[in-house]
Amino acid sequence: MSEADSALPIAITQGDACGIGPEIIAKAFRGGQAAGCFVVGDEAVMRRAAALAGGMLAVATIEQAADARNVPPNCVPVWQAPGLPADLVEAPVGQVDARSGVAAAACICEAAAMAMRGEVAAIVTAPIHKEALAAAGVAFPGHTEMLQALAAAGGEPPPPVRMMLANDELRTVLVTIHLSLRRAIEAVTFDAVLQTLQIAHRAAARWGQRAPRIAVAGLNPHAGEGGLFGDEEIRIIAPAIAAARSEGIAAFGPFAPDTVFMRARHAPGHPGEFDIVVAMTHDHGLIPVKYLGVEHGVNVTLGLPFVRTSPDHGTAFDIAGTGRADPSSLVAAIRMARTLCLAPSPPGRGLG
Amino acid sequence: MSEADSALPIAITQGDACGIGPEIIAKAFRGGQAAGCFVVGDEAVMRRAAALAGGMLAVATIEQAADARNVPPNCVPVWQAPGLPADLVEAPVGQVDARSGVAAAACICEAAAMAMRGEVAAIVTAPIHKEALAAAGVAFPGHTEMLQALAAAGGEPPPPVRMMLANDELRTVLVTIHLSLRRAIEAVTFDAVLQTLQIAHRAAARWGQRAPRIAVAGLNPHAGEGGLFGDEEIRIIAPAIAAARSEGIAAFGPFAPDTVFMRARHAPGHPGEFDIVVAMTHDHGLIPVKYLGVEHGVNVTLGLPFVRTSPDHGTAFDIAGTGRADPSSLVAAIRMARTLCLAPSPPGRGLG
Repeated sequence: MSEADSALPIAITQGDACGIGPEIIAKAFRGGQAAGCFVVGDEAVMRRAAALAGGMLAVATIEQAADARNVPPNCVPVWQAPGLPADLVEAPVGQVDARSGVAAAACICEAAAMAMRGEVAAIVTAPIHKEALAAAGVAFPGHTEMLQALAAAGGEPPPPVRMMLANDELRTVLVTIHLSLRRAIEAVTFDAVLQTLQIAHRAAARWGQRAPRIAVAGLNPHAGEGGLFGDEEIRIIAPAIAAARSEGIAAFGPFAPDTVFMRARHAPGHPGEFDIVVAMTHDHGLIPVKYLGVEHGVNVTLGLPFVRTSPDHGTAFDIAGTGRADPSSLVAAIRMARTLCLAPSPPGRGLG
Repeated sequence: MSEADSALPIAITQGDACGIGPEIIAKAFRGGQAAGCFVVGDEAVMRRAAALAGGMLAVATIEQAADARNVPPNCVPVWQAPGLPADLVEAPVGQVDARSGVAAAACICEAAAMAMRGEVAAIVTAPIHKEALAAAGVAFPGHTEMLQALAAAGGEPPPPVRMMLANDELRTVLVTIHLSLRRAIEAVTFDAVLQTLQIAHRAAARWGQRAPRIAVAGLNPHAGEGGLFGDEEIRIIAPAIAAARSEGIAAFGPFAPDTVFMRARHAPGHPGEFDIVVAMTHDHGLIPVKYLGVEHGVNVTLGLPFVRTSPDHGTAFDIAGTGRADPSSLVAAIRMARTLCLAPSPPGRGLG
């Protein structure tokens, strides 16, 4: 990412209009934590959200991404996505509504297109609701699949992606995610581990870190204790690490899962030994990132041709419209998106 | 545990004489962190360790456990275990030696006997070496199996035990430990989960907490997401929780593994929702306890008729005799043993 890119604005998609997305976005602007960002969404919905956020927050429509930096303080710049339902703001807050599904998908499409055209530095996605998408007839179950398809230019197959969960201390990339533990073990293959290492390595180059030190956590207790507690480390994981190293990837391990995250942790007085930890299962990777507070965990999709982050929570229909939604995770997602675009650190040093 | 018990001394077993055990014990006494404790070991070995620890540390033999509190400051009280090899101190430091194995086992036997007779409040075990035990012809692979056998009075079967790993923030009890992840999944049975809950509940009563809030982490991502990502929660874990509740155990869950440890964490400004988390696998349970620093994690054996803690590291033969061993984990184990004997907190409040 060049210095020119780092001056580009960040697009925040509005998310489900009936969820807490618009409200937490407005609160992030009110708190001054979304400077340099703009919303891809609906002006009326964002006006309602701004009123909910309080604090004399205005809304201004912008014509193009580049205008995001030209709005006055205490003003939310909104790029009105074309083709949204005219009565979107009438969809009842806190409920599944096809109009919200249509609008959420349209905003994601527009933001991805801007990212593909190089008009924005990154996209941050507010939460959407699977049922609203389905009610709208959208063929994708969630953000990731939609962004993969949008990133596949000219009939190419969608790029392989991996989920990274990150906070200021730790970045973990997952080989498997939403599978039962039994099926996850089967899905830990040589190809899956090697591809994860390749994706993590390339993504780090995008955020300015050309030789990230990637630790690989084993699957079994004590990383198999030499085959005594399982042989996946010997049969699968170690060979995949060796293959990655032969490609110039600084991959290490496999390490015992119970101590590798502690070793990789970057905290005051505790410089982490690694920049990224690759975990075989959903919970090996997410337990340590979430341990110090789920509100700091940011979801990052690696493998796309642009930076995409999102807060690690859903639409929270139960509190939507009450003004009680906490913008912390969205603010962390904005901050992480900035970090992943602007990383000033030299290769191999620190988490940046 | 009555108030009278809380005044009892704590026995620290010397561990492998050629490892770092004697040195870290001496350092704990030198630092004033082992007041009220005494060593079950060998006087000559402890004199050598005291010299290594520095700081004008003396060694005094005591005749019985009750004398532990009568030694002057800067003095390590040692109860000379009978039947130790006369030339134990000549076993070369940093190496496997049958004499060390014989002595380590003898010290554990004596300390367990004192605990069974009610002469000590708890035992803290310094690290032993499996190969030295084997070289000595000891039939047990480690502390836990030996203590189970010693606790089985009069030909009864050894009591079922579970490993707890604990620090000031979190206590996790493991349903499975040293098995491959594949075999661990098979070992997550109704009986194993229910027995773990019973053991944890009874152990907490021993440390003065009569209705501990026990959270149960699921096995699968999102605790199975209603069966979508695995059905062990529905088939096995939820029924075991229900059975435990029908016995009066305050068991809750199954919860998503990635957030339950964060919810149970006791930290300043963050009162944990639970007192204990039961985890299905070794690494689900140990990753969060070790994340903030492996030196604070203490191993506790639940299910024995006495309190037993140990540091969470081995004999470290590579640095034995150099004076560089860090006593932090042993000190944490002593502190945890005291906490588990003396817990002043009312039922269900705090980690105490």
